[in-house]
Amino acid sequence: MKKEDIQTLAEGIKSGNRVSLSRAITLAESSLEEHQKLAHELIQELISFTGKSKRIAITGVPGVGKSTFIESFGKLLTQNGYKVAVLAIDPSSSLSGGSILGDKTRMEDLARNPDAYIRPSATGGHLGGVASRTYESVLLCEAAGFDVILIETVGVGQSETLVNDITDIFIFLQIPGAGDELQGIKRGIMEMADLIFVNKVDDFGIDKAKDVKVTLARSLQFLPQKPSGWKRKVLLGSGLNSKGLAEVWELVQDYFDTVQSNGYFTENRKRQDELRVVEYIKEQISNRVKNLYKENSHKDSELINPYLIAEKWVKENLK
Amino acid sequence: MKKEDIQTLAEGIKSGNRVSLSRAITLAESSLEEHQKLAHELIQELISFTGKSKRIAITGVPGVGKSTFIESFGKLLTQNGYKVAVLAIDPSSSLSGGSILGDKTRMEDLARNPDAYIRPSATGGHLGGVASRTYESVLLCEAAGFDVILIETVGVGQSETLVNDITDIFIFLQIPGAGDELQGIKRGIMEMADLIFVNKVDDFGIDKAKDVKVTLARSLQFLPQKPSGWKRKVLLGSGLNSKGLAEVWELVQDYFDTVQSNGYFTENRKRQDELRVVEYIKEQISNRVKNLYKENSHKDSELINPYLIAEKWVKENLK
Repeated sequence: MKKEDIQTLAEGIKSGNRVSLSRAITLAESSLEEHQKLAHELIQELISFTGKSKRIAITGVPGVGKSTFIESFGKLLTQNGYKVAVLAIDPSSSLSGGSILGDKTRMEDLARNPDAYIRPSATGGHLGGVASRTYESVLLCEAAGFDVILIETVGVGQSETLVNDITDIFIFLQIPGAGDELQGIKRGIMEMADLIFVNKVDDFGIDKAKDVKVTLARSLQFLPQKPSGWKRKVLLGSGLNSKGLAEVWELVQDYFDTVQSNGYFTENRKRQDELRVVEYIKEQISNRVKNLYKENSHKDSELINPYLIAEKWVKENLK
Repeated sequence: MKKEDIQTLAEGIKSGNRVSLSRAITLAESSLEEHQKLAHELIQELISFTGKSKRIAITGVPGVGKSTFIESFGKLLTQNGYKVAVLAIDPSSSLSGGSILGDKTRMEDLARNPDAYIRPSATGGHLGGVASRTYESVLLCEAAGFDVILIETVGVGQSETLVNDITDIFIFLQIPGAGDELQGIKRGIMEMADLIFVNKVDDFGIDKAKDVKVTLARSLQFLPQKPSGWKRKVLLGSGLNSKGLAEVWELVQDYFDTVQSNGYFTENRKRQDELRVVEYIKEQISNRVKNLYKENSHKDSELINPYLIAEKWVKENLK
């Protein structure tokens, strides 16, 4: 792609052209430095059209019904006149090669909806860069006119931290009867959650679901307060039967009203932009120093202290 | 601490003095750059005395019995004439302030044993540096003459990746009856595991435990082969009643024989040293650029593209 094409691509995105948007996201996801730079120029062209969406994290362990929830919730939003983009963060791909949202047919209805855009997750090893790349996709979707961006993650611990760093609100899906085996993870995720949606209530019965709601609400009391000042909420419902989704959307709007009026919204987005700067620089550095140990260690067979190699590099290469 | 003290500290460590060892670990864990540099000099002094231990990761979700396992396993090892150090990685502390091994009384017997050394985990926010600091502690314990280093982690997903990056072998503790809710996490941890120990068999009954063993062994077949060429093993036992621990130690020795003869051991330790170089440099960079966004964004109220700020810094500050 040539530099002059960036202008054309930017125009395409602003007019809501999906082919342009998809090409741009592919560019942003590329690990080639040249592509990265073009993507950043493109984002610069579009910067005044970004930032206006609600960025919503949807998380939960496998089997909790995230795709079905997103399908139904997305449909509700488009019926209310919103344009909805669905993205995914999938850090597990670096280990097992898995990918979420890969199977587009899981969201057939939403995928056919003219007001929705579904982008399968990028696969690839750049774990540190995963959130950064997805953030670029968010900005591109915003420039293309999407009002709500839903970002799905597979619930395996570290992806929650990543998605928390690029979204405004964190929705955690739960099912009744889920074991207490993952206390540690749950506690960490609960701390991040703004809204906990107890899904599949029809499968488990309303009594069981209400029990879970009470237990959850009780355990939330013991968590530290959120820096946003928002109080975590628990809702019951069913993605499959579209139950409780209107209430979710209502709470999401309440949340945005709260954090926009108390200043947290802006503060949090600034914090996220700060993270992007640091992450991008770290990624560049990683690329430059990844062979440093090898280059220094084959010179003799002595045991080498990696920390001294690192210190030497910092001294010699940083102004 | 002055530079000349480093020499004295090194001598103390080499003679097995615990006070010297503890002081050195505290120095390595400090986030002050000056302390870091002194720690690196100290490690350089000791480098030819490092590398000779078996570095063993002990992981598992809360409640699985890690401390009790380590207490009994450590006792077995000291009875066999080995010197055992116990360290901990606790990345969860950055979020919830929790700390493992903090309660030394959990390992009372081992703590009193003259051939054992137990070091509670450092608390502090340097998430990226957690593995790096613990690795320095490993090197220091090795220089102090410890033959086996057990590194405990709280099982919350990302800590496993960290501990996997500083150890030779990965032992995953399980209990029968643990739910399947954490498929994703389990799969990721199972992939890393070299040895799965089904703990608390006396509580659950041998039939139940054997079921779990068969199920586990079956599911292991579907995981990709380990790069070490080692085949994952499942063992049954009880930390509390010291059952199956001799078998664990036997398998650990088999493992080391295998990977030392096929070259994986050396290759893996080199890979880990490479990681340390990159991590340390990244940490240094993070410290330097953490305020970059703020410095650039208060100049005007325009929307600012974080990626361009980052690119500019790289261009101007890296030779």
